[in-house]
Amino acid sequence: MSPEEALQLAIEASEKVVGTTSPNPPVGAVILDTGGEVAGIGATQPPGGAHAEVMALAAAGERARGGTAVVTLEPCNHTGRTGPCSQALIDAGIARVFYANPDPFPQAAGGADHLRQAGVDTHLLGVPVPTLTPWLRATELGRPHITLKFAGTLDGFAAATDGTSQWITGEAARAHVHADRARRDAIIVGTGTALADNPSLTARGPSGLYGHQPRRVVVGHRPVPTGSNLDRLGFEQYPGIDEALAALWESGCRDVLLEGGPTLAGTMLRAGVIDAIRAYVAPAILGAGRSVLSWDGGTTISDITRFTTTAVHRLGDDVLIDMTRKDQ
Amino acid sequence: MSPEEALQLAIEASEKVVGTTSPNPPVGAVILDTGGEVAGIGATQPPGGAHAEVMALAAAGERARGGTAVVTLEPCNHTGRTGPCSQALIDAGIARVFYANPDPFPQAAGGADHLRQAGVDTHLLGVPVPTLTPWLRATELGRPHITLKFAGTLDGFAAATDGTSQWITGEAARAHVHADRARRDAIIVGTGTALADNPSLTARGPSGLYGHQPRRVVVGHRPVPTGSNLDRLGFEQYPGIDEALAALWESGCRDVLLEGGPTLAGTMLRAGVIDAIRAYVAPAILGAGRSVLSWDGGTTISDITRFTTTAVHRLGDDVLIDMTRKDQ
Repeated sequence: MSPEEALQLAIEASEKVVGTTSPNPPVGAVILDTGGEVAGIGATQPPGGAHAEVMALAAAGERARGGTAVVTLEPCNHTGRTGPCSQALIDAGIARVFYANPDPFPQAAGGADHLRQAGVDTHLLGVPVPTLTPWLRATELGRPHITLKFAGTLDGFAAATDGTSQWITGEAARAHVHADRARRDAIIVGTGTALADNPSLTARGPSGLYGHQPRRVVVGHRPVPTGSNLDRLGFEQYPGIDEALAALWESGCRDVLLEGGPTLAGTMLRAGVIDAIRAYVAPAILGAGRSVLSWDGGTTISDITRFTTTAVHRLGDDVLIDMTRKDQ
Repeated sequence: MSPEEALQLAIEASEKVVGTTSPNPPVGAVILDTGGEVAGIGATQPPGGAHAEVMALAAAGERARGGTAVVTLEPCNHTGRTGPCSQALIDAGIARVFYANPDPFPQAAGGADHLRQAGVDTHLLGVPVPTLTPWLRATELGRPHITLKFAGTLDGFAAATDGTSQWITGEAARAHVHADRARRDAIIVGTGTALADNPSLTARGPSGLYGHQPRRVVVGHRPVPTGSNLDRLGFEQYPGIDEALAALWESGCRDVLLEGGPTLAGTMLRAGVIDAIRAYVAPAILGAGRSVLSWDGGTTISDITRFTTTAVHRLGDDVLIDMTRKDQ
């Protein structure tokens, strides 16, 4: 198996742990033996647990000696709660290392150099790894990566003028939202949404709650009513966006979903803190209603915020458009 | 080659004549010889010219004898400007006929019965043929099939509040719009668009104007200014939607593109005459602006008009979503 093929397996392994590793990145690793066969696959364990390389080495055992390690991120050189992965690869007798992204985290970087100094043939593959994008961007910015999610009609409405909205998108799209929540560190809503919709902000699958539940975060001053779903399930509240992002970063959140409402989404877009958008577009027209995103005042065309389309999926009759900010 | 495979060739042949055949349908036909090899392919010629079956028989010559004809629409039984196609197939000695759709046009129907009475083994394939959808729907309704086209941001704006809009969608989407115009019988705009945008409503390709140009139609009372592009190029004007649709139907239009503006689009959607939508969605947010479609007054969720997604295409960073009305 080529390093590129092994990288795809490593990415697949990392997908399974997205949402459970923060503040650590969701990394995947594959060990190939000297014959190029897969000897072990691993992914990052929850904080305090082993990193991906250590898991893959454990699975490979003695077959790792003289073999190749393929990792989605540069092996760390940092002794934190676990020992440095670069040293673990050296100790296991790995001869070649391929990694897809350099580590941008100053304390952890230097793993590739350490490997090279120990005589390990070490290469940067430079292949984009979607599962790492939020963590990489968060680490670069020093705040959580924010994905704005909305569901609306083709003409941009999340609800009718009178606030009714059940259901604009179909079952497949709604199930997708819940599966996505189970892969995030936190969900943010504004007080408007918290008061009007009495949301639970849980991640529910066909057989009940997902194993990983995101933190429930409300931004704004108005109090969340006693007895509401959020009150019952537990939530955090911050008076403003800056306070929320700082507190979430400090407490380990890297990948956050912003679920509205339109006013908070508009304010955060204008503040430049929306890194990605997941738009669930229903093939339906309302003609008038409550926008998916809003702000006061008029616009001219240069006020437009442009994104790059990264993926388009059909979910039943609905269309999911994934985007990242143009300036990334 | 199987009849199903031959049908795909017939559909491809019909795609090349879409826009040039109205009031006749854009039909494709394939003749297979007794060995199942393709002997001839044909498509409907402009009005007054030969139908698809006659073109395919001419291409096949003597190889048609004992062979199979595969046609996207039931061969006509009607002597109009041309003789009936069912008789032409019989005269050529065709042994088997497969057709994808029954002919809904009372004067032309009966071709399959006529073929069977002449001893031709005749089968309905019942496969949807996208190139025929507008013509079939128009024939059923007795008015042209209307496709609403709009280009807008993810939050449903075709322009900023001050009317600026160049360019919300990218080059690939704009080129796609022009190629689409060259496949339509007419383009409708409201007087608001005609006055504000001074549109040409031509179909321009990389090397100049396309060979087929749609009729340019303005709906509304206000006069189009002398010296405007429409005035220079020629156009038709009707005071209202009903008058426009009746006149277009009578004069042979079957497949019409509605390009706005938002008020006319909203009125026509409420009137129930929008059969399909082509939405070019740009991965961009404006936050406020002029909607892709609008009407006065509020809405409740039951005012929603739902469509069925028939195709989703990426055009550069933009996403084209094709839909047909849910009740079709």
